[in-house]
Amino acid sequence: MLEKLFTPQSVAIIGASREEGKVGHSVIKNMIEHGFAGKIYPVNPKAADIMGLACYRDVNSLPDGIDLAVIAIPAKFVPSTVEELGRKGIGAAIVISAGFKEAGEEGKDLEKRLFNAAMVSGVRILGPNCLGLINTKHRLDASFAAHFPEDGDIAVLSQSGALCTAILDWAVRNHIGFSKLISIGNKVDIDEEVLIEALGEDDNSKVIVGYLENILHGPHFMRSAERVTKRKPVILIKAGNTTAGARAASSHTGSLAGARMAYECAFRSSGILQASSLEALFDYAQAFSYQPLPRGNRVAVVTNAGGPGIMAADAIENAGLAFAALSEESHENLRSFLPAAANVMNPVDILGDAAAEVYGKALDAVLADDGVDAAVVLLTPQAMVDVRKAAEQISAAAKKFNKPVVASFIGAERVASGIEFLQKNRIPHYPTPERAVESLLMMVDYMKWRERPQRVIRRFAVNTTKVSRVINLCRKRGQMNVGEQESKSILAAYGFTVPQAVMARSADEAVSAAGTIGFPVVMKIVSPDIVHKSDVGGVKVGLAGPSDVSDAYELMMKRIREREPDARLHGVLIQEMVREGREIIIGMTRDPQFGPMLMFGLGGVYVEVLRDVSFQLAPITDEEAYQMLVGTRTYKLLKGVRGEKSVDMQLVAECIQRISQLSVDFPEIEEMDINPLKVSSERARAVAVDARVRIRGNAHE
Amino acid sequence: MLEKLFTPQSVAIIGASREEGKVGHSVIKNMIEHGFAGKIYPVNPKAADIMGLACYRDVNSLPDGIDLAVIAIPAKFVPSTVEELGRKGIGAAIVISAGFKEAGEEGKDLEKRLFNAAMVSGVRILGPNCLGLINTKHRLDASFAAHFPEDGDIAVLSQSGALCTAILDWAVRNHIGFSKLISIGNKVDIDEEVLIEALGEDDNSKVIVGYLENILHGPHFMRSAERVTKRKPVILIKAGNTTAGARAASSHTGSLAGARMAYECAFRSSGILQASSLEALFDYAQAFSYQPLPRGNRVAVVTNAGGPGIMAADAIENAGLAFAALSEESHENLRSFLPAAANVMNPVDILGDAAAEVYGKALDAVLADDGVDAAVVLLTPQAMVDVRKAAEQISAAAKKFNKPVVASFIGAERVASGIEFLQKNRIPHYPTPERAVESLLMMVDYMKWRERPQRVIRRFAVNTTKVSRVINLCRKRGQMNVGEQESKSILAAYGFTVPQAVMARSADEAVSAAGTIGFPVVMKIVSPDIVHKSDVGGVKVGLAGPSDVSDAYELMMKRIREREPDARLHGVLIQEMVREGREIIIGMTRDPQFGPMLMFGLGGVYVEVLRDVSFQLAPITDEEAYQMLVGTRTYKLLKGVRGEKSVDMQLVAECIQRISQLSVDFPEIEEMDINPLKVSSERARAVAVDARVRIRGNAHE
Repeated sequence: MLEKLFTPQSVAIIGASREEGKVGHSVIKNMIEHGFAGKIYPVNPKAADIMGLACYRDVNSLPDGIDLAVIAIPAKFVPSTVEELGRKGIGAAIVISAGFKEAGEEGKDLEKRLFNAAMVSGVRILGPNCLGLINTKHRLDASFAAHFPEDGDIAVLSQSGALCTAILDWAVRNHIGFSKLISIGNKVDIDEEVLIEALGEDDNSKVIVGYLENILHGPHFMRSAERVTKRKPVILIKAGNTTAGARAASSHTGSLAGARMAYECAFRSSGILQASSLEALFDYAQAFSYQPLPRGNRVAVVTNAGGPGIMAADAIENAGLAFAALSEESHENLRSFLPAAANVMNPVDILGDAAAEVYGKALDAVLADDGVDAAVVLLTPQAMVDVRKAAEQISAAAKKFNKPVVASFIGAERVASGIEFLQKNRIPHYPTPERAVESLLMMVDYMKWRERPQRVIRRFAVNTTKVSRVINLCRKRGQMNVGEQESKSILAAYGFTVPQAVMARSADEAVSAAGTIGFPVVMKIVSPDIVHKSDVGGVKVGLAGPSDVSDAYELMMKRIREREPDARLHGVLIQEMVREGREIIIGMTRDPQFGPMLMFGLGGVYVEVLRDVSFQLAPITDEEAYQMLVGTRTYKLLKGVRGEKSVDMQLVAECIQRISQLSVDFPEIEEMDINPLKVSSERARAVAVDARVRIRGNAHE
Repeated sequence: MLEKLFTPQSVAIIGASREEGKVGHSVIKNMIEHGFAGKIYPVNPKAADIMGLACYRDVNSLPDGIDLAVIAIPAKFVPSTVEELGRKGIGAAIVISAGFKEAGEEGKDLEKRLFNAAMVSGVRILGPNCLGLINTKHRLDASFAAHFPEDGDIAVLSQSGALCTAILDWAVRNHIGFSKLISIGNKVDIDEEVLIEALGEDDNSKVIVGYLENILHGPHFMRSAERVTKRKPVILIKAGNTTAGARAASSHTGSLAGARMAYECAFRSSGILQASSLEALFDYAQAFSYQPLPRGNRVAVVTNAGGPGIMAADAIENAGLAFAALSEESHENLRSFLPAAANVMNPVDILGDAAAEVYGKALDAVLADDGVDAAVVLLTPQAMVDVRKAAEQISAAAKKFNKPVVASFIGAERVASGIEFLQKNRIPHYPTPERAVESLLMMVDYMKWRERPQRVIRRFAVNTTKVSRVINLCRKRGQMNVGEQESKSILAAYGFTVPQAVMARSADEAVSAAGTIGFPVVMKIVSPDIVHKSDVGGVKVGLAGPSDVSDAYELMMKRIREREPDARLHGVLIQEMVREGREIIIGMTRDPQFGPMLMFGLGGVYVEVLRDVSFQLAPITDEEAYQMLVGTRTYKLLKGVRGEKSVDMQLVAECIQRISQLSVDFPEIEEMDINPLKVSSERARAVAVDARVRIRGNAHE
């Protein structure tokens, strides 16, 4: 779809300039000097030729059939130029010009005009306000960057043009090759979603890395990303996570969630790997670019010094990777050529005086072991070792096996030639054992993601009509906080068990209701103005007899009237007391970017204090729901400690999936909590003891 | 104390060799070539002279008055040589020779002999099995290292000789200067404690960094370290944390603690900063070496690109540092020379086309702001900026203020000259904004540590005689798990409130005891063989009347006999039921290395599942006890959520201090839990509802 952008046969440069230091000069210079094989058409009304190429005075005078235009003219002329491109049949443009929405009100207007011009003309636009685009395989440098990177299979995209510059500057010195480098700028048309999808289909790109500050269309992006990540790794830095202000929220789920959590969920459920810094981004990229994926998580270490070996072992354990246990055969093999003082157990210590050949033999022995999925090779620059030769031996051994090998040669001066050899021979090198191990962890995580079965969303038989009716009723009343009873009727319509309950408007009615339900009972205030009932003394449990009930009624009314004199009190709910069961919370809050975000965790009034919760975006699979459970400490509690029986985990996972379905079916539901959901181990039963639902005001949006 | 080691006037090299490639050759070569100004005496029975110096055939034939010997001869000759040194009056030796305890049984014997030789002769020994020692100011290179580092104020010590080699190799290339580099080897005599104390008094060392695999004398080390860290920062990597196996423990505290936690507590309470990798170690070291300490935690950012600015802002927030708010005056100042599109708020974005001078002026403006304690300067290699000149400007501005400035020039090729200038002018440079911010965080942490008031351990009036009596009684019985009642009497002797309780040996006795105490009551099994009573159904709460009590007695006895047929059942405890109060746990477990480790957290049976606990080594100050509270989520719970009253935090902190005192007073107590300690907000009261104490068997050790 983006062929004209990525692999044009001819490029017009609008605003090409003879003047050094000008962007329009850098672009045409880059195009010519970096060996673009197609035709280049400079457009500049004031010049006859630029760098030996005949110049055109405007878009209209260009020949037909040009694939791509690069625009580097003042912002105010850009929208009309794009319209001209459309008329001329040039289907793609890179707008390098700045002065759009990043530059105040006037710029915002210009960007809207540019958007309209793109939509009307059908010209696909990268930018504006970007560094441009580089496609190394195609020798295309449609940018004003100072460097042209080496050829490679890492595709880079960045929402910050300055970071592109910095990344290129770094890559050139470190011999990191790129397939494409794309500065995405203000994303007026082509955005991260389109690009990741295109790079997913690009056979020249083995791994996609990027820096993003925002994502425009959350759910679409996730679906595209999921397709791509099944084929190749996508690693992103999402910056600006923490600065997003907290939203006001009336549910526990809403107040515990946040923009950062939403991004984490979105990345997790679409298989995107997150990097916390540029260093980490390229650490991981090199591992994926250079090495095969591991088939498991068992890591072996080969070292010529004890200290770094221990550091690697610590890192493996901290990362949650498995420390490979070598077979007896491997031990014998290693013993056959290592000195007696060497350690043949993992971490294999070949000792400080080991020659380069010993590195090769030891790595060979370790990789041949069926119990090893990946290896970390460490080297300290001891007097005896020929570092360059060791690198050659390591590289040769690694090439014999289809298992990832990463290295850390610790030092700088004496290890430089070895590191260079490793890099050139596609053995990823890291300055510390910790960074080497972290890159392996990413590979293992990605391998697990790739092996996940196809996502299947289970659908339950539910009563949507009932829910629609409740929501419409509340909306008619202008009541955004759905009352407890109505919230529960929504849940009941989605297959939840709710406690038996009767509304009472007086002490007498309350006593008679309690008699019907059977003692002991719970009494709860009913008021559209009170969301957190416990906070105002609006919940009384364990009422054992008629006098308890009538006393509690009088007291509750008196106290709440004192505390909340303006609240409308409709009466109380007399409810069956659910004694047995562990208290959990299941909730949902709607992220503005990514939609319904589900929460599971330890229930009760202390949920926000203990914060033992996990999140996932809806719709959710059975496996994902189960993973939400496992992600909490509450899980162990539900499994039963100190001789208690486990609750039915499948039942809990199903409850989460039902809320997932509800929140997908009804976008009108803004947020909700079931807290507590009481899950018993005795009978496989989950009762929604309390619940709150908040809906959106406007019916259509 | 270690003058002879650090600044000798004359050095004998035992095992000096003419043969290149031999350690004995490297040592004498390093001594001569790196400019040692004192006298050098090679000792080798087979050579007349080495590298132009007259050779001595043995120690005995050396002249008198030599300060230091460096030993590089086969291990088996080392102990007798040390004895000879003693007789010759040479008071210090560096034993480079390997083949000691790292090399099997025979080596272990040799090391014991070496230890004895050192003790008997009084010769202070560094090593064995080490790389040696470098003192740059003294031009002393008593090592076989391949490099001599630049002069600087960072002191390095390492338990791994190979890491010393790697660190030197790295430092040379990166122009990092060291005051001293000390390879500590097997620590037969001089250990980390002695060295850190000596380096603390060394005016040439501004910051001490080290790599340690173990610490020999925990409490001594902590006391020494605390004295040193009040004067200068000590940053350590403690490797091998995770591989330590979990110890068997009968208390919650014991099972939640671990060797790693003990090290963390020890480092925290003695002001040692921990680094998680070599990279982090030297990141921090450079910040401390080059820059003044901040006076607060408010950080400002100056950048020429938005993306890295956001990354720095994220890092500042993640680190828990404060994002500085610039004054209106500073905004105006910045506006006066920055273009209109620039951002004058923090992060200050001077834009991509900013010239070098603008960097200087912007940093100047930011550092002049009283609301700024530290600054991070970021640069991406944009076309317009002269990177080297920007570095000069930044350095000049930084020197005007007594506030720390750290930098990150992102890239490699075009930023290299700027980075080099920064490094040489003592502005710490980091490859990423994240690492720059993390180093500032370490400085802020250290500043806070330095400002902590003198530690004062409060002592409470307690009844030690009573506790001694209980412990002795249990020991006589051979009963290591002190029973609940006796555990509580220990607590009562240390000022704790315990619930009223009566022992009962039959259902009738139980009923009568309950009548005395007043209903409702709690019944608990009494058995020396049952530690976790709840697990076997040995606790029954809320017994409301006589028939409840007698029924509960029958049932409890029946069930426990079925489950634990071999347990000796002494009867039950009838106990006052403490209703009100939040359940917390306070516990202690004795770490083999560092002694009593205190734990505070959320109490109840789920303590090991929820793991909301914090640790600290005893003895503990009032402030430290309070910090233990703050370190948990339970703290918020005790503060009161949703309208509840706060419990008396001072009371809880005092309870922790009482347990601290108990565990220091009675080393016989191996571990203990008070769980739950019920703390009420109504009356300032903390009741030890249940407790267990385990003591050590042998009275004297």
